This record gives sequence, structure tokens and C-alpha cells, in this order.
Amino acid sequence: MQVLVLGSGQLARMLSLDGAPLNINVQAYEHHTQQILHPLTLSPSSLTLEQAISQADVITSEFEHIPHDVLAICKASGKFYQLDRAIKVGGDRALEKQLLEKCGIKNTHHRVFNTKSAYEDAVAALGIPLVLKSTLAGYDGKGQWRLKDSADIANTWNEIETFLAQAEAGENAAILAEEFISFDREVSIIGARNAKGEIETYPLTENHHTNGVLSFSVPKPESQALQAQAKEIFEKLVTELDYVGVLAIEFFDCKGELLVNEIAPRVHNSGHWTQQGATTSQFENHLRAVCSLPLGSTEILRPSAMINILGTDALPLTLLTMDEVHQHWYGKAPRKGRKMGHINVTATDFASLRERLKEVISHLPAEHFPELEQIIEKALA
Amino acid sequence: MQVLVLGSGQLARMLSLDGAPLNINVQAYEHHTQQILHPLTLSPSSLTLEQAISQADVITSEFEHIPHDVLAICKASGKFYQLDRAIKVGGDRALEKQLLEKCGIKNTHHRVFNTKSAYEDAVAALGIPLVLKSTLAGYDGKGQWRLKDSADIANTWNEIETFLAQAEAGENAAILAEEFISFDREVSIIGARNAKGEIETYPLTENHHTNGVLSFSVPKPESQALQAQAKEIFEKLVTELDYVGVLAIEFFDCKGELLVNEIAPRVHNSGHWTQQGATTSQFENHLRAVCSLPLGSTEILRPSAMINILGTDALPLTLLTMDEVHQHWYGKAPRKGRKMGHINVTATDFASLRERLKEVISHLPAEHFPELEQIIEKALA
Repeated sequence: MQVLVLGSGQLARMLSLDGAPLNINVQAYEHHTQQILHPLTLSPSSLTLEQAISQADVITSEFEHIPHDVLAICKASGKFYQLDRAIKVGGDRALEKQLLEKCGIKNTHHRVFNTKSAYEDAVAALGIPLVLKSTLAGYDGKGQWRLKDSADIANTWNEIETFLAQAEAGENAAILAEEFISFDREVSIIGARNAKGEIETYPLTENHHTNGVLSFSVPKPESQALQAQAKEIFEKLVTELDYVGVLAIEFFDCKGELLVNEIAPRVHNSGHWTQQGATTSQFENHLRAVCSLPLGSTEILRPSAMINILGTDALPLTLLTMDEVHQHWYGKAPRKGRKMGHINVTATDFASLRERLKEVISHLPAEHFPELEQIIEKALA
Repeated sequence: MQVLVLGSGQLARMLSLDGAPLNINVQAYEHHTQQILHPLTLSPSSLTLEQAISQADVITSEFEHIPHDVLAICKASGKFYQLDRAIKVGGDRALEKQLLEKCGIKNTHHRVFNTKSAYEDAVAALGIPLVLKSTLAGYDGKGQWRLKDSADIANTWNEIETFLAQAEAGENAAILAEEFISFDREVSIIGARNAKGEIETYPLTENHHTNGVLSFSVPKPESQALQAQAKEIFEKLVTELDYVGVLAIEFFDCKGELLVNEIAPRVHNSGHWTQQGATTSQFENHLRAVCSLPLGSTEILRPSAMINILGTDALPLTLLTMDEVHQHWYGKAPRKGRKMGHINVTATDFASLRERLKEVISHLPAEHFPELEQIIEKALA
């Protein structure tokens, strides 16, 4: 099978690594340079996008901010299923909210605006504090504001106005205002659906962010009720979208009630632990789904957790001497805060996992892993 | 790290897959075409061997029948350690026997010959039945004879004479005659040694062949005494060779006494189960060793076994629905008897592994997996 992935980052790279054993060959479309390249070697080919589409059996994507004209070409090929709708939803917080409302799925109270008066209406309706996010672009903390004090209403509008004026989307640029939710923690569910409509979901993962970027994920033993709640929402959404592939849903956990925060129509950072922790990785299951193969088991093999490596390209050699500590590097040049790789840690039981994680942290340079010790202390208490 | 592998087959491919997460990039030298290519994509580069050597941090090999002039260039670069001696030993049964004798390691009684009179002397000295193998080339059952009856002495010589006359090695071509050993089973030990002299060995693996080619491998719970015996031989050999990398030793198990049958200075088919069954795969450990990184744990994660896929490029989809049944394809065009891929099967315990293997077999096309049912029945009785 030949699979063309839109995007050539670490997700495409890991898709290609997990595709190889199944004889699934992955090519990538790098939208900045408009080149077709291999996501592992990054060697560009001489193919045009149209030629690559013609050679591919299936098209899929590793990210949601794909130019809509590229999506249109892919859709026209008949090899992209209904994924373009999911990608538009995943890349547009306003569409995402509309979808959730349509499916009757709980989410935050919200308004969408792009004028000062609509902004002021939103502040009046939803109250302060208020979370403000660009609907179209930006993730990992970019294009986001928090309005905490009524004294900042005008200042915040000034910042947003500047942002909107510079936004690539031009007149389509808009801002989503959401009520501030007092949640206990963030969790996500990752799952896969194939063209037959078969669905498999992984156990819920608890996620921790540092400076707005995911830093630590751990699938913890959760109550059956919570797992069932997440699974039901997952099934509703992927069925409504007629989605094929792996999809991630991020939730706020408010005392056992899950509120959808975000939908990512792709393999997801909070599912990287599945490489060592689950019977089938999220990457393999995404490829199985889009290639119309049976889905693989999403059972947990052994307790596991994932630590993101941000902004550094070297870790102490000692880590390589530790059992069940697997480094996954993305082959990228270091840049402050950039996702450079991740570490999967597994163990025979949860208590050993906690001890192993503590030892891992003791070897990590604190400047690149701020707050991690406290995060893990709290997450695995 | 940049690693150049001599050879571009499935072993180089799997080295590249396990190197990627550690940011170890693997290039391959295809000796038939003298091209440098990527072992996963098989895309040739414009590099010469000399340029690839100059770009590489380290050189290693996936097979032992490398032209000695290529070995000499690699050795001269200073990036190939002492591996060329091990490769010569691994590719020459006469040198292999000399090494075993030098180290005082038990092996079969044998003679090396290339004339009719020396052949007749060997038959007289070692008796019938007699196993005859080309010292230099040929494996997986090629260039081998069995002399079972004194009536065949002349016929067998005729066949050998023809073989020697056509042998690539010309005057250096020779035949190893070995006494026929009545052994209970074949086992192998795989291990790694790095430049610091640190050594890690995997548990012993029991191997089964069909038509002279490995068809099934399983690491069974063995007595500590047998494991210690194998480990001692492994340590003696890699230390004597000052070997760096993964090396495999095949043994005849004669009522608990291990007789060395063959040495393979590389990752080995009987170690493929380590991909799912061990904490660190043999491929990762080979790269760690040659890249002067600490070796990874060789502990068993869960009971596992490996089935070779020979001569076919398609298996029933049902196999993909089975938990813990991992297919590893090599991306090769099918040819009768060719190694096309393998299946790793794991389970929580040995009894479940046996049941799972039985179910796997029930889905495999019998014509491509002859004798497998009986082999597994016997191996996991």
C-alpha cells in the first residue's frame, strides 16, 4: 500500500516507521515547500502533488491547518474519504463548536466574534475570566489570550485587533470566546475508526501542559464510567463525521463530567505512549484504518507514560542504561520550546512506573523539563 | 549518528527502523550494484562507497560474504573496528573452526579439503554419515551435501568437484567435512558487545528449520546451566574477536552439551522475536554497540515466538485481527522460498503463547508453511 500523508513532521515520520513492517509505504507532502518527500529521510522526490496523489492508494493527514485548495485536490481524487470535513472542523474552532452542538455533546459556553462590539457582548454574556482563542490557526499556546480582569478589556481587544489584522485568514479570521472552566485535570481519548465503521478506543490519558505545551501524558486506571463517557462521545463524533483514521478528543474533567475542549483529526501527542504501552500503536492503527485493514487491539500491554522533549537535542547517556526507557527523537534541529522527541517509560506495575519516572527525572536537565517533577508527583500520587 | 551498513536487505531495513527513534540514520551499501541507498526506501543516492564512508560515523554489516577488497577499504577508514576479522570468520567455515579450536570451544570433528584424496581421507577419518559444506559461500542449504552411504562416495565427490570448479573463490574454494552429530535440537544465543567490552546476551532461542531454512524460533525457559554454558562461549568468542555489535552463535544441543555449529557476526533471523519480546531489540542493540552507546536490557518482556514467512507476499487479513500477532514484511518481491517477512507472536504466559500460535497456524496457508504445525506442537509440547 502507498499512503500519502499531508504534512512531513514527526507524526508522518512515526507513521512511516510503523507502516514499514506492514509493507505500507508512506510519502509526505510538505506544504511549505510543496515538495513530496519521504518523512523519514526527508529526501525530496521530483513528484508533483498531483503525481503523488495518483500513485497513492490512500491520502491522509498529520495536521489540520492544510490549505483548503490542497484539501480540495485530495478530496477530488476519491482517496481521501470524508476526512476533509474532519480536518476543517479540527482546524476551525468555530466549526468544532457547531459540530459539538449538533451532536449534543457537552462543551464550554462560548461566542465567536471578529468585531469590537461582538467582543464586548461576549464578555458581557460569558463573564470574566474569559479564554480567547483564534478560531483558525495557532496551537500550543499561540494566538490565545486570557481576560482575567475587567480593567484589561480594552487592552486585550487592542491585542486581538492587531492579531486579526495580521491573520493569514484575512476576513475569515475570528476569535472564540469561552467561559473559564474550573476543571480538575485534562484528559484525552484516542481512537480509530475504519471505513467499515469499526471503532477501537485506547484507555483515557491524563495530560499535563507546561507553558501551554503538552509535557507529560499518562494513561491511568480510570473508572469504567469515565471511560464509557469518553468512548460514547468519541463514537458519536467519528460516526457523525464519517471519519476514517485515528482521532483524538481532549476533555476537561470537571468532577467526573467530561467537557470537550478540542478535537484533533489525526494521531496525537497524547497517544505516543501507545508505541510501547499498547498492543497496537496509534500510528499503526491510523494506517490500518485508512488502508481499510482490520483495526489492531488497543489494550494496554503494561503501565506506561510519556515525557515530551522540548527544545533540546541531547539527553544524558545514563538514560540509555535504564530498562524500559525508550527515547524517540524526531531528527529535528533544536529551537527553543520545539518538540524534539519524547520518552516512553513502561513498567510491570504502576508503583514501579512511578519509581522509574522519578529516576528518569533525576537524570533530566531541569532547565528543559521545568515543573516535570511536580507534575509527575501530582499525576502519580 | 550516521551508520553505513554493508548490505541492503531486510536486516539493514530493520536496523534503520530501530535506529530512527535514536536519531541514528542508516545508509546501506548494495554490493551487487555498488550503490549507496536507503535500506527502507531503497532509493539510490549519488554517493560513491568512499563518499559514504567519509560521511559515516561508523560502518557495520548485515552479512558476512562481503568482497574482501570492500572490507579492506572499510577497515582503512578506521570506522569499522575489528569487525573485518569477525566477518571473515563468519564467512569462512575453515577460519571459524580454527577460531573455535584456538578458544578451546567444543565443536564437531572436521576436516577441510579441496582434492579428491583429501576428501577420501576425511571420509575415512570421520566416518559416514558425513556433512559436507562449502567453506566460503552459500547458506540456507546451498553448497551443502550429506554423505549417507559409502556407495555414494564417488558420486558426491563428482558433485563437489563440479561445485569447486564453478566456485567464485577459485583456488581458495574448499569444503568442510564434519562428523554427523546426533543432536536433540538447535539453539542459538544472540548477544551484543560494545567497544568498552560490555556484553549483554539474550535468552537462548530454540530454532527449527524446514528444507534447510529457519522457519520457527522460540526463546523457551531454559536451565540456568545451559544458559550459562552458552553465555560463556559467547563471551569467549566476542572477546577473542574484540567484536563490536550483535553476534549470533548457533549450537547443537546434545543432551545439554552445546556444540558450536555456526557463528554469524551480525543481527540474526533467530533474534527477530526480540522486536516484540525483549526490552531492547537486537537491531537497536547492534546500533547501540557500534555507535558506542550503552547497551540496552536484553530481558524478556513477555513470552514470544517467531514464524518466518517464506515465498509468499500475502497472508489472510484475519491475522491482523488477532491480538499480539505482529507481521514484519521486508518489502520484497516474492520468489519461491525467499524470506519475505516474519510474524512475531507474544502472550502473557507460555500456555497462552502455545494457544495463540495454534490459532495463527490455523489461518496460515499450509503450502507456504509446511511442517509448521508439527514443529510448534513439538517445540511447545
